[in-house]
Parts: sequence; structure tokens; C-alpha cells
Amino acid sequence: MRILLDVMGGDLPPQELVRGGIAAAQRHDIDLVFAGDPSVIEPVISKEGKRGFEILPSRSVIRMDDPPVKSVRDKPDSSLVLGLRELKAGEVDAFVSPGNTGAIVVASLFVLGRIAGIPRPGILAVLPTLAGKEILVIDVGANSDCTPKHLVHFALMGSAYARDVLGIERPTIGLLNIGTERGKGNRLIGKAFSLLEEGPFPFAGNVEAHSLLTDRPVDVVVSDGFVGNVFLKAVEGGVSAVTGLLRRSIRGRLIAMLGALLMSGSFARVKGTLSYRRRGGAPLLGVNGVVVIAHGRSDAEAIGSAVEVAHREVRSDLLTRLRHGIEGWDTDGG
Amino acid sequence: MRILLDVMGGDLPPQELVRGGIAAAQRHDIDLVFAGDPSVIEPVISKEGKRGFEILPSRSVIRMDDPPVKSVRDKPDSSLVLGLRELKAGEVDAFVSPGNTGAIVVASLFVLGRIAGIPRPGILAVLPTLAGKEILVIDVGANSDCTPKHLVHFALMGSAYARDVLGIERPTIGLLNIGTERGKGNRLIGKAFSLLEEGPFPFAGNVEAHSLLTDRPVDVVVSDGFVGNVFLKAVEGGVSAVTGLLRRSIRGRLIAMLGALLMSGSFARVKGTLSYRRRGGAPLLGVNGVVVIAHGRSDAEAIGSAVEVAHREVRSDLLTRLRHGIEGWDTDGG
Repeated sequence: MRILLDVMGGDLPPQELVRGGIAAAQRHDIDLVFAGDPSVIEPVISKEGKRGFEILPSRSVIRMDDPPVKSVRDKPDSSLVLGLRELKAGEVDAFVSPGNTGAIVVASLFVLGRIAGIPRPGILAVLPTLAGKEILVIDVGANSDCTPKHLVHFALMGSAYARDVLGIERPTIGLLNIGTERGKGNRLIGKAFSLLEEGPFPFAGNVEAHSLLTDRPVDVVVSDGFVGNVFLKAVEGGVSAVTGLLRRSIRGRLIAMLGALLMSGSFARVKGTLSYRRRGGAPLLGVNGVVVIAHGRSDAEAIGSAVEVAHREVRSDLLTRLRHGIEGWDTDGG
Repeated sequence: MRILLDVMGGDLPPQELVRGGIAAAQRHDIDLVFAGDPSVIEPVISKEGKRGFEILPSRSVIRMDDPPVKSVRDKPDSSLVLGLRELKAGEVDAFVSPGNTGAIVVASLFVLGRIAGIPRPGILAVLPTLAGKEILVIDVGANSDCTPKHLVHFALMGSAYARDVLGIERPTIGLLNIGTERGKGNRLIGKAFSLLEEGPFPFAGNVEAHSLLTDRPVDVVVSDGFVGNVFLKAVEGGVSAVTGLLRRSIRGRLIAMLGALLMSGSFARVKGTLSYRRRGGAPLLGVNGVVVIAHGRSDAEAIGSAVEVAHREVRSDLLTRLRHGIEGWDTDGG
């Protein structure tokens, strides 16, 4: 299996990401192609690499705050666009990048195109829960304006991912809403609810944001990309608030500081569970190729984890399943 | 000052809420009227009350899962509807209830009506931050479908509350979005951004959900009620996830458990800061009366805090300011 890793455009230096890629490649049977500046990548490969890694030289970089459409058009020689072209040409099996999310979505649509019958791709987040198993949320940011039908397609793709990649049989679907009762929520939600009821999957109704990580009420949660993205960032904000307050509350208090020292293993375990490092990649589903978006702040460990997410998705052959349509698939996009 | 407290319809028994109300009334110069079942309220008052509390007898209760519009229509003798009528009649200065949020909004609109020039009321959440000062978010659940103009009115009302009730001079306004750059977000956000730029307040642009509680980038955050509600619940979910994981991670580990014991003061302080008990009330702004919605799970402490929120709002005379229109107020609702 060959995976292309875009090492430019993340928040951390490319060297860090090359190292993370090499480590993941050596853990699995992966051939890696690094898209980026050869003068930066080469030294790391010759120092760390024990096998033949390749480089796809690029001349420009799409930055985090570049406007997506404009930058994809103006920078055809960027690691991001060149990397996706390599995927489109069949030279690699998957594309992984910690870059500008909007630009990855735009370039994926432009270079790879959509899978027939899926009007909009969706970004899938795989989140840890107190219940042990992970919960999937789709879409967490590819589409800011969705129709009810888009949400049904997210449900179908999330369901296929849960089954084919994570091995969950007959995954249940929930609709992210502000109450569990039917009839709660806005117009989009009302219409999506009716459509989801008729979908070829077990639809469990509405789910609320506060219960997802603690109770894990369903396997897959669907949402429009705006709300899904706010959800994700608000959870992150809640986690940061607790840890920040806790850190402050022990400051200057010797006994509490000793307590924190004794609990350091526990803190590390919790941090590990909630860490974006361990959950390095969010698959972009619905485009014609395996694309995994890593967190912009990805370090070596996180990017290695994103490469593994791509590896699992390729191995599961989810893309072929999506391309041929899954059971009961509604190809009437709109 | 007379405040009416609806003690039915919350998750906890009315007795608990009566006790909380009495404690708050005794801390401040508040006359309380309890709306509810006299046979339940009377014994608590005669046992705990040192002054003349009153009772507004009601015969039915609107429950948490009752459909708002139907229950308000079918239960005119409920503590919720009777209490709001008392406020409308000028018998009390404010109304506080831990009941069904949708029903409180519907009944407030029905009984009190809107303030002229404000097309939609908004629920204001007052949240603790790492930066010390609180941050305000409006709307967190009164309106699931908003127009850009509604968001401008939320900004005006939130700004007035920040200034008149909390004493913040020239409060800054932020728009809850999925990126800080202009142009991010959905159609509603795009139009609201342009309108907010022209508003009579310092508009600081977009703010993201993960930074609100840690960085407190602005004084007041505006959002449509659906997204604001998801935000609030997702933060709660993030907090629960950390505390739940931490609790689990020490289980059976003696050293970590000892550490947790030494840190118990710190945990209590953090819990206190983030607790809904201490932040018991969310004002419903834009209706023609002072209405405070308490958390459904409110206990005595929380309901006392909600009574204090109402007390501060009445004392600040915010309602008169809103009624007469604040500087630069746009009365063209829509």
C-alpha cells in the first residue's frame, strides 16, 4: 500500500511530520510518498529511513489561513494539489494532510470529484467516549449549509464506515439535536428526521450534544457541517476549561500539588484518551479517493495516527463499497 | 422587590426549591411569591420562613417533556402560566422558573408579549471563563431558526445586559463561527457578519467555540439558538468526559486515589466554578418582563442563584432600557 503524506502546510515543521510518517510506515506495511520541499524532507529520510521512501517535490504551500478556493486555483504546484493529483492518477492509495481543511475539501472535489450519487462529501470525526467504544460524527466541517438529504448521505457514509472500517454490525444512527423529543430543533432537523426514518439503517432519533461522549447513545451521529464543527470545538473548549482550571487551582498549594503528582499517571491516561494526537485523522468521505485530514497542530505521533487511519480505510476497501453503492443507497442527490 | 418563583415543574421536589428561594430572599431584600401547590409549599414556609412569604396556588404543572405550545394552552392554571400572569399584572417584578424551557418561552411570548422592536426573544447564558470574568452567549435555545437580523437584536440585548447588569463598559461582540477569518461559515453567518459590522457596538468579528471559555475573546457572543444550545451542551459534554475519565482512571489505583484525596479541594473549586448550581439562571431577554430560566436540575442553591440573577436584573432596570430602546437601536424587526 502506498500512502501520500503532505508534510507542508501544517502548524509544525515538515521534519516532525516526516518522522511521524516514517514511524507509522515502519509499524505497518506502508510505502510512503512525502509531498513537499525535498531539501527539507531528504535529510530526515536519509537519517531515519531504513527503506525506500519517496518524495513528490512541490514548490508552494497552501497555508492555514489561505482562502480555500483561491489558493487551490493559484497554487497548482502546492504539496496539497500535487498530492491529490498523484492520488487521482492512481500512483498512491490514499492522501493524508494536516493542512487547511477548506482547501483540502475544495481540492479533493476539484481533483478527485465526488462519488456518483453523493452530492456532498462529509468529514467524519472519530471520538473517544466513556463507554469505551468510539462514536462517529459526520459532518464536522465540510459543508456549512446542508439540505436534509445531505444529512441522509452523511448517515449512509458514516454507517458504511462504522461497519466496514470499524467492524460495527448494523450501526445505529442519531441526529444531533437540541432535545431528544421528536419535533425539537430547526427546520433542517425536522425534515432530516423524516428522511432518516425512511433510511436503510437503524435510526435511533435525536441525540443531544452533552450525552455523546458519556453515554454514547448511538454509533454514528449526523449533523450539518457548521453545527458539527461547533460541537467538536465546544467539546475541546470544555475539556480545556476543566484542565486549565484544575492547573490553576493547585498553583501554590503544596498538598494539592503533591496530590497532582500522585495522580500524574491518571492525568496522562485521560489526556491520552482525549488527545488529538492519538486520533490524528478525520476521513473526508464522499470524494473519489481516500483522503484523511489530520489536525493542523499534528505532531509526529498525530500524523502517524492519521496515516494509520488512511491505512485502515484503504485495507477495508470502503471506497469501492461507496462507489458501487451500499444497500438501499439513494442516488438521487439533492 | 417582589419575585415570583415557580417551584413546580423542575426535576427536584418543590420543597427543595422553596428552601432555596427562602435562603436567597433572606440574603437580599426580596419578597418572594411561590407559585405551586400550597399543601407542599406551606409547611416549608412555616418551618423555615421568618418573614411573610406568599403563595400563588396553582392546580396543574407543565412537565419537562410536555409539548410547549399545547401545554401552555391546555394548562392555564399551571404555576408557569399563572406566575407569568402575575408578572404581567404588575403584582411581581420578576418571574423565575426551573421548568420546561420551551414552555417558558412560549408562555412568556403569549402572556407578556415582545418588547416593541425586538422580533424574537433570546436566552442569555452567563458562563465562567479561565480569564476570570464571565462571557455571555445569546441565544442558547429560544429560537431554532433565526434570520441575520435576529442575531443583531441578540447582540443589542446582550450588550445592554453586559453594560447595565454586569457593569461592562462598551462590551465587545463576537459572532460564533467555525473559523475566525471573514467569509467562514454558512449563509446566515455571512449576512449576520455584515449587519453586525454596522451595529452600534464594537464588533470583534468571528469567534470559535473552543476559545470562548479559555481566552474569553469578547464580552458577548451571538449565535442562533440551535447552534448556541449545541455549543452549551457540548461544553457540558466535554467537562463530563474529562471528569468521568479521571474518576475512572484512579479506580483501584491506591496512589492515584490518595492523590485525588489531596486534590479534593482543587476539584471542589473547579466544580464550583463550572457548576450550574452557582450559575442558576439564564435571562430570557426581549419579552415584556423580567424572566429567568433556571436549570431543570436546579437544587436549592441553584434556584437561589437564579433568584439572585432576577434580582440583579430588576435592580439594574434593564427592562426599561430595553423598552425605551437603547442607543442606535434598530426597531425594524424582521
